[in-house]
Amino acid sequence: MKKVLVLHGPNLNLLGTRERSVYGEQTLDDINREIRALGEHLNVEVECYQSNVEGDLINRIHDAVGRVAAVVINPGALTHYSYALRDAIAAVEIPVVEVHLSNVYAREEFRHTSVLAPVCAGQISGLGVMSYLLGLRAAVALAERK
Amino acid sequence: MKKVLVLHGPNLNLLGTRERSVYGEQTLDDINREIRALGEHLNVEVECYQSNVEGDLINRIHDAVGRVAAVVINPGALTHYSYALRDAIAAVEIPVVEVHLSNVYAREEFRHTSVLAPVCAGQISGLGVMSYLLGLRAAVALAERK
Amino acid sequence: MKKVLVLHGPNLNLLGTRERSVYGEQTLDDINREIRALGEHLNVEVECYQSNVEGDLINRIHDAVGRVAAVVINPGALTHYSYALRDAIAAVEIPVVEVHLSNVYAREEFRHTSVLAPVCAGQISGLGVMSYLLGLRAAVALAERK
Amino acid sequence: MKKVLVLHGPNLNLLGTRERSVYGEQTLDDINREIRALGEHLNVEVECYQSNVEGDLINRIHDAVGRVAAVVINPGALTHYSYALRDAIAAVEIPVVEVHLSNVYAREEFRHTSVLAPVCAGQISGLGVMSYLLGLRAAVALAERK
Amino acid sequence: MKKVLVLHGPNLNLLGTRERSVYGEQTLDDINREIRALGEHLNVEVECYQSNVEGDLINRIHDAVGRVAAVVINPGALTHYSYALRDAIAAVEIPVVEVHLSNVYAREEFRHTSVLAPVCAGQISGLGVMSYLLGLRAAVALAERK
Amino acid sequence: MKKVLVLHGPNLNLLGTRERSVYGEQTLDDINREIRALGEHLNVEVECYQSNVEGDLINRIHDAVGRVAAVVINPGALTHYSYALRDAIAAVEIPVVEVHLSNVYAREEFRHTSVLAPVCAGQISGLGVMSYLLGLRAAVALAERK
Amino acid sequence: MKKVLVLHGPNLNLLGTRERSVYGEQTLDDINREIRALGEHLNVEVECYQSNVEGDLINRIHDAVGRVAAVVINPGALTHYSYALRDAIAAVEIPVVEVHLSNVYAREEFRHTSVLAPVCAGQISGLGVMSYLLGLRAAVALAERK
Amino acid sequence: MKKVLVLHGPNLNLLGTRERSVYGEQTLDDINREIRALGEHLNVEVECYQSNVEGDLINRIHDAVGRVAAVVINPGALTHYSYALRDAIAAVEIPVVEVHLSNVYAREEFRHTSVLAPVCAGQISGLGVMSYLLGLRAAVALAERK
Amino acid sequence: MKKVLVLHGPNLNLLGTRERSVYGEQTLDDINREIRALGEHLNVEVECYQSNVEGDLINRIHDAVGRVAAVVINPGALTHYSYALRDAIAAVEIPVVEVHLSNVYAREEFRHTSVLAPVCAGQISGLGVMSYLLGLRAAVALAERK
Amino acid sequence: MKKVLVLHGPNLNLLGTRERSVYGEQTLDDINREIRALGEHLNVEVECYQSNVEGDLINRIHDAVGRVAAVVINPGALTHYSYALRDAIAAVEIPVVEVHLSNVYAREEFRHTSVLAPVCAGQISGLGVMSYLLGLRAAVALAERK
Amino acid sequence: MKKVLVLHGPNLNLLGTRERSVYGEQTLDDINREIRALGEHLNVEVECYQSNVEGDLINRIHDAVGRVAAVVINPGALTHYSYALRDAIAAVEIPVVEVHLSNVYAREEFRHTSVLAPVCAGQISGLGVMSYLLGLRAAVALAERK
Amino acid sequence: MKKVLVLHGPNLNLLGTRERSVYGEQTLDDINREIRALGEHLNVEVECYQSNVEGDLINRIHDAVGRVAAVVINPGALTHYSYALRDAIAAVEIPVVEVHLSNVYAREEFRHTSVLAPVCAGQISGLGVMSYLLGLRAAVALAERK
Repeated sequence: MKKVLVLHGPNLNLLGTRERSVYGEQTLDDINREIRALGEHLNVEVECYQSNVEGDLINRIHDAVGRVAAVVINPGALTHYSYALRDAIAAVEIPVVEVHLSNVYAREEFRHTSVLAPVCAGQISGLGVMSYLLGLRAAVALAERK
Repeated sequence: MKKVLVLHGPNLNLLGTRERSVYGEQTLDDINREIRALGEHLNVEVECYQSNVEGDLINRIHDAVGRVAAVVINPGALTHYSYALRDAIAAVEIPVVEVHLSNVYAREEFRHTSVLAPVCAGQISGLGVMSYLLGLRAAVALAERK
Repeated sequence: MKKVLVLHGPNLNLLGTRERSVYGEQTLDDINREIRALGEHLNVEVECYQSNVEGDLINRIHDAVGRVAAVVINPGALTHYSYALRDAIAAVEIPVVEVHLSNVYAREEFRHTSVLAPVCAGQISGLGVMSYLLGLRAAVALAERK
Repeated sequence: MKKVLVLHGPNLNLLGTRERSVYGEQTLDDINREIRALGEHLNVEVECYQSNVEGDLINRIHDAVGRVAAVVINPGALTHYSYALRDAIAAVEIPVVEVHLSNVYAREEFRHTSVLAPVCAGQISGLGVMSYLLGLRAAVALAERK
Repeated sequence: MKKVLVLHGPNLNLLGTRERSVYGEQTLDDINREIRALGEHLNVEVECYQSNVEGDLINRIHDAVGRVAAVVINPGALTHYSYALRDAIAAVEIPVVEVHLSNVYAREEFRHTSVLAPVCAGQISGLGVMSYLLGLRAAVALAERK
Repeated sequence: MKKVLVLHGPNLNLLGTRERSVYGEQTLDDINREIRALGEHLNVEVECYQSNVEGDLINRIHDAVGRVAAVVINPGALTHYSYALRDAIAAVEIPVVEVHLSNVYAREEFRHTSVLAPVCAGQISGLGVMSYLLGLRAAVALAERK
Repeated sequence: MKKVLVLHGPNLNLLGTRERSVYGEQTLDDINREIRALGEHLNVEVECYQSNVEGDLINRIHDAVGRVAAVVINPGALTHYSYALRDAIAAVEIPVVEVHLSNVYAREEFRHTSVLAPVCAGQISGLGVMSYLLGLRAAVALAERK
Repeated sequence: MKKVLVLHGPNLNLLGTRERSVYGEQTLDDINREIRALGEHLNVEVECYQSNVEGDLINRIHDAVGRVAAVVINPGALTHYSYALRDAIAAVEIPVVEVHLSNVYAREEFRHTSVLAPVCAGQISGLGVMSYLLGLRAAVALAERK
Repeated sequence: MKKVLVLHGPNLNLLGTRERSVYGEQTLDDINREIRALGEHLNVEVECYQSNVEGDLINRIHDAVGRVAAVVINPGALTHYSYALRDAIAAVEIPVVEVHLSNVYAREEFRHTSVLAPVCAGQISGLGVMSYLLGLRAAVALAERK
Repeated sequence: MKKVLVLHGPNLNLLGTRERSVYGEQTLDDINREIRALGEHLNVEVECYQSNVEGDLINRIHDAVGRVAAVVINPGALTHYSYALRDAIAAVEIPVVEVHLSNVYAREEFRHTSVLAPVCAGQISGLGVMSYLLGLRAAVALAERK
Repeated sequence: MKKVLVLHGPNLNLLGTRERSVYGEQTLDDINREIRALGEHLNVEVECYQSNVEGDLINRIHDAVGRVAAVVINPGALTHYSYALRDAIAAVEIPVVEVHLSNVYAREEFRHTSVLAPVCAGQISGLGVMSYLLGLRAAVALAERK
Repeated sequence: MKKVLVLHGPNLNLLGTRERSVYGEQTLDDINREIRALGEHLNVEVECYQSNVEGDLINRIHDAVGRVAAVVINPGALTHYSYALRDAIAAVEIPVVEVHLSNVYAREEFRHTSVLAPVCAGQISGLGVMSYLLGLRAAVALAERK
């Protein structure tokens, strides 16, 4: 059974407890449960991980090599400046789908640029938890093409 | 049965016949067939329309009011400058999902900015025909929330 | 009796039915009626036309040559990028007054620049329907000077 | 009887004596006379004031509170950098109409930006003395709405 | 006999009747006659078309596929913002030569950038009607190379 | 007993009467009273002055030489463009603390840059009247160091 | 007794041992001692923490929820690019005061922009250790308002 | 005998008492004495005036019309933003020579742009008091040409 | 018989020996031969000159005055920064046609700007050796108009 | 025997296993072996360390104080945004040589700027493993100068 | 007797024969004669040199070391990009005065920046031949100070 | 025996006689002697050349083809604008190493960009004469790879 890694970046551990008007009512555990349920439906194993440390996320992407068929990542604010994360994604040959809960293009100027997007396979944003779920569908399809 | 409008912008009528390395092998008819099939599966009626004229696309969006529950749009190159299309999307109260076949962030600089994104519900890019299919799933879900 | 052409650009056909907090409660027909009433008072014939197609508006401006003494135009979002419309205004020797219902300078950054303004006789913005009415007064005065 | 304050900024005292090709043949007194005549016709009292000192204009705007129903201002070159004047306009709750004799958008680059425009009710430019007269009409209408 | 399509963009229908100091005395018909005469001399059939609608020009370029050996286009003001026209040129495999009557680099700032130039085979500007005639020579030569 | 000069720039005379949601409920007199009370507590004489005229504020800074041990200044909107005020602060050798009632970094773009900050000793912003009070504490400490 | 968290960002552990001309003679321990002494005087408990790892600082801010009444943070160089730290501050509902030892506006260009400032309650800079002490006073006052 | 007006802008009254390493040891009176001595030598009457108020300097320039043959101005920091002063210079038909004591191009970035320079006859900078003296020679020569 | 000067800028002496995929297989001698052949056909004398030294090219342009009826110049990389060459072209009253072998707009960003274009009569680019040949035709036609 | 610290930033642990066309065939262990061999030849002890965590690298630089005579650092993508790393290098008084395997100036725009370069002693880039070896030679020479 | 070197940059050899409306009627020889006459009056030897080759001008500046007391330079268009000339001026310890015949700030945008100005002693522009004469006076005075 | 060409750009002939604090005490002859000594040690012939003329340096690079195995170049200030030199380096197939004595990234803004770097094999800067010596080592290694 193929495995998909779902990575959550900085501050996503606070989901559902803070700024609910922007990010929704669900906690990260709720979201992970929904993702895993869809994973089961799509017949893939889902591994979820959250960290507030850029280097941890890079390590996780490195560790995915040879173990994981595709990655779904919500990089949080690292989206906008972490060229190190970008290089990690570019270095491994695993397809990566970038997702965002909110419509980043309708928010502050700095959120309009993703330094990761050019090296990801695709991006999905603005659709709440559905961004993750569609991202998982995309990841599974990309994994199958390989 | 709810209806979803799928709009294709300039030059998408050439799909499958030109620049296949960028846009894939399928013709617009092939894609529309796939979209309609998923629509059936999701229990919505799908209406597809392509035009190379900005004003035609605006008219179609206006015509959707009261008739259509959600819109999926691939605005082609109008993505990058058509503030008139943006105003049309902002004016109607129908949720709109912006989709792109290619990863626009991995291409020319001018393709990195969407003037429509801030007024759409969400964006999906880089995933080929899957961008449309996931866009349709999103549109259906958004239509149901209303 | 002199004739003044009043041109309405993209999406203005939706006036009064959508985004009323920004654009007011009146429909385009209501506004045209007010404009025509003032035209009668000022002793000019008023011709109103709306289109969502850039090229149609250009054609209308070309057609005005030799028939119309002045133009009032609300170019909608074309204000911000239609250099073709600009060239049309510059090409005909009819005085043109640019009008906007809302205060474009208090809205999104992209609305702060008009590519038409340098070739129009004058601009009036932010005053709701009054922008049109004052624009008509200006157009009539400019027509008389010729 | 309602009162409208008409403010003239730096260098407008030279009108009619200098740079006539840009600003026209009329002196500031001529213009004030025309404005007052229209004021009588519209049944409002008009108070005119000119100063070359930014702080004086700010003081005048402060003094208008509780005494004046609307303001027409031609801020001269202060248009382009006086954030202090902007704050004065934003601070008082009187509607302010910004006017310019010349078409500022057809002149030097620096004249294309008004730091006051976002906090004024509306702007009228390029129409010579008519800019003031239409500005007065707008001011009177805005005063009545309150 | 090979065919070359000559496309004229927005406002070029006004040639010879307006702004003669910039664009010269000849009407579009005069220019088309000169172009056709040279076409005869060079032994190619020339098809001329003018439109003020971006989408019409795109349609014409699409229609050229399989029928036309090369295109000469004066895109008018669309030169500066029509990424949709650019995509049309990039999509068809016909060599396209971009021409301009005036020296666009000696005019307003916005005319210094052509969004089409990177996907055209070559550009010729500033030489009046000769720009078209040299463009036709280039188009014929490019057509022969294929 | 050492003396500290507290300078209030343009529009601060309106405090407490306008835009209370941004600047708070207290009048300038209330604030001056609080500042003087703290001055007494810190054993310094406090001199307060407000002006809407840039040149007046410059004159006051010049007059402070030899008389005043430190300055607290809220330059209002002059913060963002008055290089003349900057030069005045740089010219005198008195330590100057720049204060702002509101969090200027959470407001309009133009408020994010202070042309005075590089020549002041320190800056305090966003803390309401407390900005002045902490500014006075800082000024007193800086005065003692000399 | 209320608690205030004082966070020190990257490189602040070197204080007093390096670059004394810029940052002063005191070590971080000296500064923490002064801060705690003032805390006692103001009747709050002070908790000090330093880290060179962005993610650690984010974790500390998350941990503060429900335990700490206000935060004083000197983010060091993270000030200028850590949008992840910004999101952490925005996510928790605790008031945060940003402080800097040196006058960042009198140093390199990149130090003039704080990506955290828009979501902090206030900023204090340029006053050496006093920046922390005034920051603590501000934090205590903000904590009391809640 | 012809008259030349020498205008000194903000903060120049402090010359010789502050920042001597930048602006030299001489007081404004010393400089005026040197200027007047050269004026006598060149057979012109010299009138010197200093003000820290932008509007005062504008008034002085207006007053010069018909009385003064040429102006030498050191606008101080107003050089960099006072478009109102620029308009005053452009409005009067008297030749104006802009002078600076220091080499403004070797100082802060903001000092590299003079908004007045485009409407002055010439500029002289970096030569200390000699800038004024050479400016006077230039002014006298320009006055004679008229 | 009229004379046309053909100038080749830096590195064009290497043509045909280096970077053939960009610049083609022909040597500079081959190209000069083709140009001279067309010159004969068009009944003008052609003088060819290549230099890697900016000042030499300027001298050649100066020497052309009174001797040469028109100039064709491929300025090589000097196109992008040699304002001295621009001034030389602007100073002589001979019509100059700027040519480029490659499509400069499809290459590096810095090649998109020609500092010479605004003072040349016209530009031809992207057409290989044909750029020179069409340039010669243009030069001859321009020479005849004088 | 003097010691030199060689620091490898994010993603360099993947060397030799990924993106070999850009970074070469050698693993990080291979490179470290070559560096140590040269160290022996140059009579210095070499200590190698790699981390994907910005804060770890900062800690290592702090730990080097008093122990290490010079540092060679390949900061990976942190080169382009880690002002915290920059401050660490500036804070310690050890000479630091920045090295890059690839020619960063021939790659993406964002790789053209190093925020560390201004505080390093020197930079070496584009020479593959030789960048490290020459960097070590430079470090040893700089260490000896102290 | 002290010697002053007067350097004329590219295209100045054409003075008086071309573009007289911008640069005046006098030839370079006329100007050199006037400069030498003033030199005699001021008791210095004047050496004049013109070249269109950047490297020649640099060589001349190098040759001036130990022979010449001051330099007056009109760098022509090299003003705007020749960092090599700038380095030459910075390298020799001779005071250099930069002069321009025309008011460069009233001409094209690119003429507003001098890359030489920061390393020259002073600049004089806009005053025609008088720019050179006043430049010579300045040079002589600077030479005497040394 | 392989040959390496060492090119010194503008003003490097002044080394050791001027600005010693920036560029060190050694003359160009001293440096060339050191370079040649290392060349002997590395068993290559070294040819040194200095010129202040851009075109001379280009000629030398052209002449190197077929004669020289690698080039070390210190382009001096031409680094920052000489696209002609860049094209010369790109045109010849010889590996080129760019070197700088000083740390250009710690100096003026304009020195931070090298227009040559993208077409050189590598860059070495900030290490004084060692930059040349390491550059020679790199050149020799690159020559051997070919």
